Amino acid sequence: MSEQKNRKHNRPIPKAPRGFKDVTTDIYRSRTHIIKNISAVYEKYGFDFLETSAIETVESLGKFLPDTDRPNEGVFAWKDDDETWLALRYDHTAPLARFYAENINSLPNPFRRYSYGPVWRNEKPGPDRFRQFYQMDADTVGSKQIGSDAEMCMMLCDSLGSIGIHYNEYRLRINNRKILSGIVEKAKITDKEHPEEAEDLFFNICRVIDKLDRLGIEAVKKLLGPGREDKSGDFTRGLNLCPSQIDFFSALLTKKDSRTNFFSDLRAVLKGSSKGNEGLDELEKMADIFLAEGYSESVFSFDPTVVRGLGYYTGPVYEVELNRKMIDRRGKEYAIGSIAGGGRYDGLVRRFTGQDVPATGISIGIDRLLAISKIEGKIKQSNRGPIIVTVMDKERYEDYQKIVSMLRKGGLRAEIFLGNPKDLGRQLKYADQRESPFAIIQGSLEAEKGTVQVKDLILGSKFAQKIDTNDEWKEHPSQFEVNLLDLVEVIKSRIEV
Amino acid sequence: MSEQKNRKHNRPIPKAPRGFKDVTTDIYRSRTHIIKNISAVYEKYGFDFLETSAIETVESLGKFLPDTDRPNEGVFAWKDDDETWLALRYDHTAPLARFYAENINSLPNPFRRYSYGPVWRNEKPGPDRFRQFYQMDADTVGSKQIGSDAEMCMMLCDSLGSIGIHYNEYRLRINNRKILSGIVEKAKITDKEHPEEAEDLFFNICRVIDKLDRLGIEAVKKLLGPGREDKSGDFTRGLNLCPSQIDFFSALLTKKDSRTNFFSDLRAVLKGSSKGNEGLDELEKMADIFLAEGYSESVFSFDPTVVRGLGYYTGPVYEVELNRKMIDRRGKEYAIGSIAGGGRYDGLVRRFTGQDVPATGISIGIDRLLAISKIEGKIKQSNRGPIIVTVMDKERYEDYQKIVSMLRKGGLRAEIFLGNPKDLGRQLKYADQRESPFAIIQGSLEAEKGTVQVKDLILGSKFAQKIDTNDEWKEHPSQFEVNLLDLVEVIKSRIEV
Repeated sequence: MSEQKNRKHNRPIPKAPRGFKDVTTDIYRSRTHIIKNISAVYEKYGFDFLETSAIETVESLGKFLPDTDRPNEGVFAWKDDDETWLALRYDHTAPLARFYAENINSLPNPFRRYSYGPVWRNEKPGPDRFRQFYQMDADTVGSKQIGSDAEMCMMLCDSLGSIGIHYNEYRLRINNRKILSGIVEKAKITDKEHPEEAEDLFFNICRVIDKLDRLGIEAVKKLLGPGREDKSGDFTRGLNLCPSQIDFFSALLTKKDSRTNFFSDLRAVLKGSSKGNEGLDELEKMADIFLAEGYSESVFSFDPTVVRGLGYYTGPVYEVELNRKMIDRRGKEYAIGSIAGGGRYDGLVRRFTGQDVPATGISIGIDRLLAISKIEGKIKQSNRGPIIVTVMDKERYEDYQKIVSMLRKGGLRAEIFLGNPKDLGRQLKYADQRESPFAIIQGSLEAEKGTVQVKDLILGSKFAQKIDTNDEWKEHPSQFEVNLLDLVEVIKSRIEV
Repeated sequence: MSEQKNRKHNRPIPKAPRGFKDVTTDIYRSRTHIIKNISAVYEKYGFDFLETSAIETVESLGKFLPDTDRPNEGVFAWKDDDETWLALRYDHTAPLARFYAENINSLPNPFRRYSYGPVWRNEKPGPDRFRQFYQMDADTVGSKQIGSDAEMCMMLCDSLGSIGIHYNEYRLRINNRKILSGIVEKAKITDKEHPEEAEDLFFNICRVIDKLDRLGIEAVKKLLGPGREDKSGDFTRGLNLCPSQIDFFSALLTKKDSRTNFFSDLRAVLKGSSKGNEGLDELEKMADIFLAEGYSESVFSFDPTVVRGLGYYTGPVYEVELNRKMIDRRGKEYAIGSIAGGGRYDGLVRRFTGQDVPATGISIGIDRLLAISKIEGKIKQSNRGPIIVTVMDKERYEDYQKIVSMLRKGGLRAEIFLGNPKDLGRQLKYADQRESPFAIIQGSLEAEKGTVQVKDLILGSKFAQKIDTNDEWKEHPSQFEVNLLDLVEVIKSRIEV
């Protein structure tokens, strides 16, 4: 209770913590709409819902985040009473691997689940960079079939379609980590003597390439080489590759025609690398399935610069980018970035079980979809404020309560005005703020007669805006008296007009 | 990547942390059903959804938990990079107070919101005691009308009704913190010289009384007095009240007829305490509203032992208890405890703003409702497994993929078998595990003819169980051949049978 005691001198500041925000009704309704539609697609594809606990042991989460230079490794973590380190999940995939390993003997094989909910990243917050965000995932654990990767890509397209984002509005860019491995092999970077160091170096190269879109090729070359100083003067250490290796990467990453001649170009570069060619074979098989299924070639493209930041991917990786730029509130153009993506991660369950368990999955960034639908008005908000029963006479509270009950029992959304009822103006202002369709007024005169006054607030605001009304509306004045017994029917008929 | 390197010698244990669990499909479907129904009630009463961020500053959450003896104060907390202490929310009410104070100027007044989602408590986990649980709240901030408290109680009844828990199955026990204040005042415990210490003592007495149901009157008397040693030998310090004061409480708390003669008995005890009588007046008004609204007197009862553990309540408090005991898996009877409750907390927003802001709200414990519905089968699970398209010939993957697509486009839930297709038995076992209604089989013979074999797995399992089949079923064998073009229609007609 110490806060209460000191409240006069030392009040807490009412503010969500840095990098966190609240979800209001409008956003919630859009989110619910998105979740409902995408869930229906995931379910239709045969996936069942699973929600893991928000908290995992740090040991079981592993450290697969793109940015692990920071001491706290990008997660929110703390020590439990029994000295175990706990952390909030940073995605839905690492907890799935833990769940699968924990329940391996009782689960169907393959195991197909979807999930949605918040994930948390302990990153530096920015104006559009939050530390809690909402992801919607689907994964197939236990299948090494490349068809399961192809299916994920098609399901991603169908999911976006289900919320009104169509083929011509985005591109699905696809790559394979095995191709990246092949490129690293051909660049003669890998050290056969120290395979573990080579693995670390490979993931570090992936992380650098992942920054290409954001930082550009010159920055990436510096990060592959001696290092880079950013605008703020912070220096990031580089990977110290030699200039010829850097040139090899840079030539591959900046090829203008890499998309159209993807397979022939890369077959040439990767000649002799069995891993690299395996990666190319897989992508060709995926392309066959897409075309057989009738997915247009303009939807997906293959691109050797697609990396996906997370460290656990081992095979095909892909991400969805919107074709056009967005316009922010100040009229400035900006790229919305990747709104979804995924890939194959065959090693994640092996961490627990010691056995190979192939797995593949996708993740859709719900907050970015919400940002788009908010800006573009893709999801229509219906007027859904409650009917307000005003309080004219405090002593007759039970009468007003009865009117509210009657409306609710009639299937209508309604509430009694619960603030200070001293003037009607304040009550009607409240009804306006709630976007109420009707206000109900009953003074002592009406109470005696068993009637109420109904104020049609939508019609009223149309009159106020001097909008031309046609004959039909003339028969519907914005305020009228009605017998209590007819109230529900009259309001329902008005809502349907 | 260090985990990956050491995996052979030092694998992480795949287990949810102590006190956490995962939500599987069945539970999720029941939970979705409960949320949908109760949301509809909350919305009908005029409440709009709001979801605050999962993380708050410790300062803004305050310390209102029942059990604050532990050093970490019952929450999961850690220090942010900028030295701010952050914590996971322990309920939905404290974050609402922060949100309201932060947005006070733009919100309608009163502000009516509902919310649902997980909350986290850093408590000692037990077999049925988890550290993450799901609550569904509704609150009205800005109304001091006792009608808003009465409304909460009625909405609680309607919410339970919406998920099939009826009046005769529970009791809503109601008290008022002001009555408890009056009792403390009459017991001559309060110290006019040190009002802050008196406030602390009052909350400590509330916390002790709150344990009455769980520990019994003798333990409560010890905790009001010198202290108590529990079975494990742990000693809890008492409040050191003098014997006459303890007797005064114990007489009140154990009155057998306290419910029927609640008002007359307490008017006598509280004579001269203005606060105590104010509390009684409020409860009488609530009773009037309930009766006017037609809520049966058998549903609610007034009871001076109802406290609610949380430290922020200031007025009416109430909780819902099921009438009958539950039976666990081993056939043992147990009390499910309070499944919902709430109360008035006029001081919670004042912590931030320095101004009085009246508020009242309810919270429904979704996990306990799920436990009931699971045990009692109140929520029927529909068979919703996907149709499985088996893989007979790996080379014809695209053909099977086309069959799956056709089923999905026809509105059916379907998937291709993505595991190792080497034998059909394994694929049909998988279909069983997924509770699939049908398996589709296409060998090269059928492929040539443009047909498939359909296995009706539900019918098949009925045959296997040797259940008598009537004539109608004889016309529907459990496996049959069908032209690909008719597949969707045939399956749909079977599902409708």
